[in-house]
Amino acid sequence: MLPAVLDLAGLRALYASGRLTPVALAAEVAARLAAADPAAFITKVAPEALRAAAEALAARAPEPNSLPLWGVPFAVKDNIDVAGLPTTAACPAFAYTPEADAAVVARLRAAGALVVGKTNLDQFATGLNGTRSPYGAPRSVFDPAYISGGSSSGSAVAVAAGVAAFALGTDTAGSGRVPAAFNNIVGIKPTPGLLSTTGLVPACRSLDCISVFALTVADGLAVRRVAEGFDPADPYSRRAVPAAIPGAPRVGILTPQEREFHGDAETARLYDAAVARAGALGCALVPFDYAPFREAAALLYEGPWVAERLAAIEAFATAHPEALDPAVRRIVESGRAPTAADAFRGQYALAALRRRTEATWAAVDLLLLPSAPTTYTVEAMRADPIRLNGHLGRYTNFVNLLDCAAVAVPAGFREDGLPAGVTLVGRAFSDEALAPLADALHRAAAPGLGRDRAAALPAGSRVAAPAPAPAPAPAPERLSLVVVGAHLSGLPLNRELLALDARPEGAARTTGEYRLYALPGTAPPKPGLVREPGFAGPGLAVEVWSLDPAAFGRFVAAIPAPLGIGRIALDDGRALPGFLCEAHAVAGAEEVTRFGGWRAAVEARRGANPPA
Amino acid sequence: MLPAVLDLAGLRALYASGRLTPVALAAEVAARLAAADPAAFITKVAPEALRAAAEALAARAPEPNSLPLWGVPFAVKDNIDVAGLPTTAACPAFAYTPEADAAVVARLRAAGALVVGKTNLDQFATGLNGTRSPYGAPRSVFDPAYISGGSSSGSAVAVAAGVAAFALGTDTAGSGRVPAAFNNIVGIKPTPGLLSTTGLVPACRSLDCISVFALTVADGLAVRRVAEGFDPADPYSRRAVPAAIPGAPRVGILTPQEREFHGDAETARLYDAAVARAGALGCALVPFDYAPFREAAALLYEGPWVAERLAAIEAFATAHPEALDPAVRRIVESGRAPTAADAFRGQYALAALRRRTEATWAAVDLLLLPSAPTTYTVEAMRADPIRLNGHLGRYTNFVNLLDCAAVAVPAGFREDGLPAGVTLVGRAFSDEALAPLADALHRAAAPGLGRDRAAALPAGSRVAAPAPAPAPAPAPERLSLVVVGAHLSGLPLNRELLALDARPEGAARTTGEYRLYALPGTAPPKPGLVREPGFAGPGLAVEVWSLDPAAFGRFVAAIPAPLGIGRIALDDGRALPGFLCEAHAVAGAEEVTRFGGWRAAVEARRGANPPA
Repeated sequence: MLPAVLDLAGLRALYASGRLTPVALAAEVAARLAAADPAAFITKVAPEALRAAAEALAARAPEPNSLPLWGVPFAVKDNIDVAGLPTTAACPAFAYTPEADAAVVARLRAAGALVVGKTNLDQFATGLNGTRSPYGAPRSVFDPAYISGGSSSGSAVAVAAGVAAFALGTDTAGSGRVPAAFNNIVGIKPTPGLLSTTGLVPACRSLDCISVFALTVADGLAVRRVAEGFDPADPYSRRAVPAAIPGAPRVGILTPQEREFHGDAETARLYDAAVARAGALGCALVPFDYAPFREAAALLYEGPWVAERLAAIEAFATAHPEALDPAVRRIVESGRAPTAADAFRGQYALAALRRRTEATWAAVDLLLLPSAPTTYTVEAMRADPIRLNGHLGRYTNFVNLLDCAAVAVPAGFREDGLPAGVTLVGRAFSDEALAPLADALHRAAAPGLGRDRAAALPAGSRVAAPAPAPAPAPAPERLSLVVVGAHLSGLPLNRELLALDARPEGAARTTGEYRLYALPGTAPPKPGLVREPGFAGPGLAVEVWSLDPAAFGRFVAAIPAPLGIGRIALDDGRALPGFLCEAHAVAGAEEVTRFGGWRAAVEARRGANPPA
Repeated sequence: MLPAVLDLAGLRALYASGRLTPVALAAEVAARLAAADPAAFITKVAPEALRAAAEALAARAPEPNSLPLWGVPFAVKDNIDVAGLPTTAACPAFAYTPEADAAVVARLRAAGALVVGKTNLDQFATGLNGTRSPYGAPRSVFDPAYISGGSSSGSAVAVAAGVAAFALGTDTAGSGRVPAAFNNIVGIKPTPGLLSTTGLVPACRSLDCISVFALTVADGLAVRRVAEGFDPADPYSRRAVPAAIPGAPRVGILTPQEREFHGDAETARLYDAAVARAGALGCALVPFDYAPFREAAALLYEGPWVAERLAAIEAFATAHPEALDPAVRRIVESGRAPTAADAFRGQYALAALRRRTEATWAAVDLLLLPSAPTTYTVEAMRADPIRLNGHLGRYTNFVNLLDCAAVAVPAGFREDGLPAGVTLVGRAFSDEALAPLADALHRAAAPGLGRDRAAALPAGSRVAAPAPAPAPAPAPERLSLVVVGAHLSGLPLNRELLALDARPEGAARTTGEYRLYALPGTAPPKPGLVREPGFAGPGLAVEVWSLDPAAFGRFVAAIPAPLGIGRIALDDGRALPGFLCEAHAVAGAEEVTRFGGWRAAVEARRGANPPA
């Protein structure tokens, strides 16, 4: 019943058609979890618990697709808290069971998404390869001899294999991008601070980002928009100030002397093909000086930031050194060497590099880089774990140190059938602005979706380029309001809406479950709308208006009792905020449902009671 | 011919009238240099060199006052480079002679200002008292037994004594403010990054600011405006984004429990008088929680930042430990102890403190603090150099760590004739916005100018309040929301409110007309509140939160059925927007009104149904 991989557009269509329910999805996901790469998950949600969550969702929000991620299954990297499931960070001795969801998990669940399990990772998110875990090494979905990439190894595999529609990863050095490349999926690496890290086991606390794996850029964006938001409980959370990128951007590309693919001519070819696609899409291709970015990347493991990895778990690592993966232990222990003076000197060096990169940012709008220069077999990685891991981060390690956003997209396949990826990197809070080009590059590469190389990217989830005119500001947010009574066009209170710059968005009709009453003693006359499940009335003519959020807030806050704003089901399937009435207030009131709407009722009553 | 002290308005008037020329000024300044406190200067510009500079200015710009600082004499702290004069940082063995001016010195000279000499300082700018120098201890211009304050000791004395019209200091912990207080002058501490530090010997490179001493706020502003500007050669230089402060600002003042003057009742009295003046000037006086600011202040010497002082001179300090002042050596050497992990942990602590202070910045526009809680004799300071120095920084050390701007102004005199000062502190880039109130407080105190207690502040240099029209934002509008169920503090959905910057406004109780039901099938569990006129229940414990209108609008628009926002009657007579439930949804639901609120109901239910 379900497709091999789970993109949001496909799931929504199935739900809307009634051919899929959350409970049915839960059963299928349970089957896929059972069949998944055993190394991909550390904790799987049990079939009965999956079913219970699906049932709870259906009870809470019965209408299909009535929440942004209604019935969408997702996996969570096991360094991010999910209430009631152990958080191991791939270190059994470290494990604890949190009582609360991480902030982003709570947001996603509130939006209707369903947790399917906790995924394997390079222990304490230290690594880019996926082999540093006592729970085994997840493999690329295209060749079990090869690494999945890391540290968010299991999350990437879960999405690529169709177990989840999206997954949360984390990304300090590139852990949300390298595994995307190795599994033919999209990796959204938000600007540092855009997504709360409350409930995350830190790797480098000043740099850690929670990231999103998805099959398409549109899916990743939809998830990120739900997950993001300022969190006062996270000292590193920031209020976003969106940065714009022009429609035909200047794209920074590697110069010949900065190209390094460690002998992987096929990945080099795929990078060149992505560059050519960017040119064909109208981008100006600008070779730029990668040196300061490369030097910043080197600081992450060669500079003092490795001490953050120690600081994150110092008491544990000191008490239980044997509990650590050998490579992770070597790295964490190396964090004991630098002094505080070294830490500050490293920060001075980084400040100077940031300044040097400003010349590049004056010349380009974004960078187009390989997500990883090559890939390795699990065997090769285990034989040379530190050096080869270093190779993988060549084009990713600088991104958080330099306060950038990134979107990794598939770039096609090597001759041996392994995928490669490219990453678009933009300045802080260019998260939205990077997306249209990332999506266009992904579509132009036509690499399928995850493990399904034959899948077409869903046409309906194309990411629109920003409006060409005054690009900087995104389209202003508008909130819908269903107007039922005296605020209808032409009726006495409509001017209150007009005074708030509300805009009419069209006529609509409620479902048949609503009754309308003329509230006694109101001037001007007002109706009260009350829902009665099971009632089969004519439905009531209403109007949908839109307001900006502040106007909406002011409007709602001024509504007198017994009226209020709840959610009204319309006969076109939408459920929008609109006027409802406290039930006690319609006791004894004249029911006017039969008129099919307040305007008709007013006219009929006027005819019956001509003005004196 | 010249007045006892040299304010810019007075100099300009003399130049404009033709009664003074730069060459004549040079001769008078040479005489004053010769008569000055011998400990104030490390290098004095020779009379013939002063004359030559004056002649060069007259040749370059013959018209009086044709440059912003035409013929204005200034002194430079001896950790800031002036081409051709040695830079000692008060450590003879460290001295070098730079070929180029520091960036700010070059700007000031280009604007017509004339360097008169290099001033003494606490060695390597490490101290707030002015006694840590092999070149002697400059004394307060009001009593030679007393310290001048530091580290910018000689610069403050030079201005207060009339040798220079202004002077450059530096300010990491308070070195640009404490000496201003002890010499009855103004200290302008710019936002970090506003003035370039190119050509400065660092103390804590991530925090160091070049500061300005002057006789009036207007003079300090005029100098700062010339000196400031983005410098791509300084990695910590920033592009200013001016921050506004309303015309009648909310001024944060110390609470009784945070007042600490180390027994100096006179300085306490002068602080109280300054607070009263602020009130008389129309400011709203708002006692605020100084604790997070105090904790940040403590980080500067007790946390890892002391390692920056080592990092700045590590090779020199290691090779020539005996070249250091004993107190400075003790501090610099203490920078060897913290590890890089400690450095990062200190930065995490600071990030958390910055977040905590946001609550204060939501309630006040600026802080009004003592510049220093008391002062000491040179003898007392030398007997207990570390502890007493720590006292001096109580109200200054946090300012750069928390990325603030500050203006220190005189506040009058103790009974023993020693001056005290107060400092206005604002958020980053409030430098201009702080000035009108700082100037008004200075004028209201009428303390004279520097050593000249009888001088009137020049009427012509009054700092205008900002144009009233566009800038001053009104107190931000907040809308109240009555929270009933899962959004209560500590309950699962409360984080949705926090993510929207909602603020708790207090506990409340509904009237007795409301019934509460546990809605079946909700996760997390949610209640439904329904009003029933005439019902006499216990009333239900709720919380009132406030949100800005847009957040309120977004929040309401996202509420799923059967919940909504209506108006809830509280037992204190208010009727506020809050959560209600459609009546149909409570049919068959368990009523929990008897518990008196959702939190109690949850706890009771948890007890009744222990987790499996």
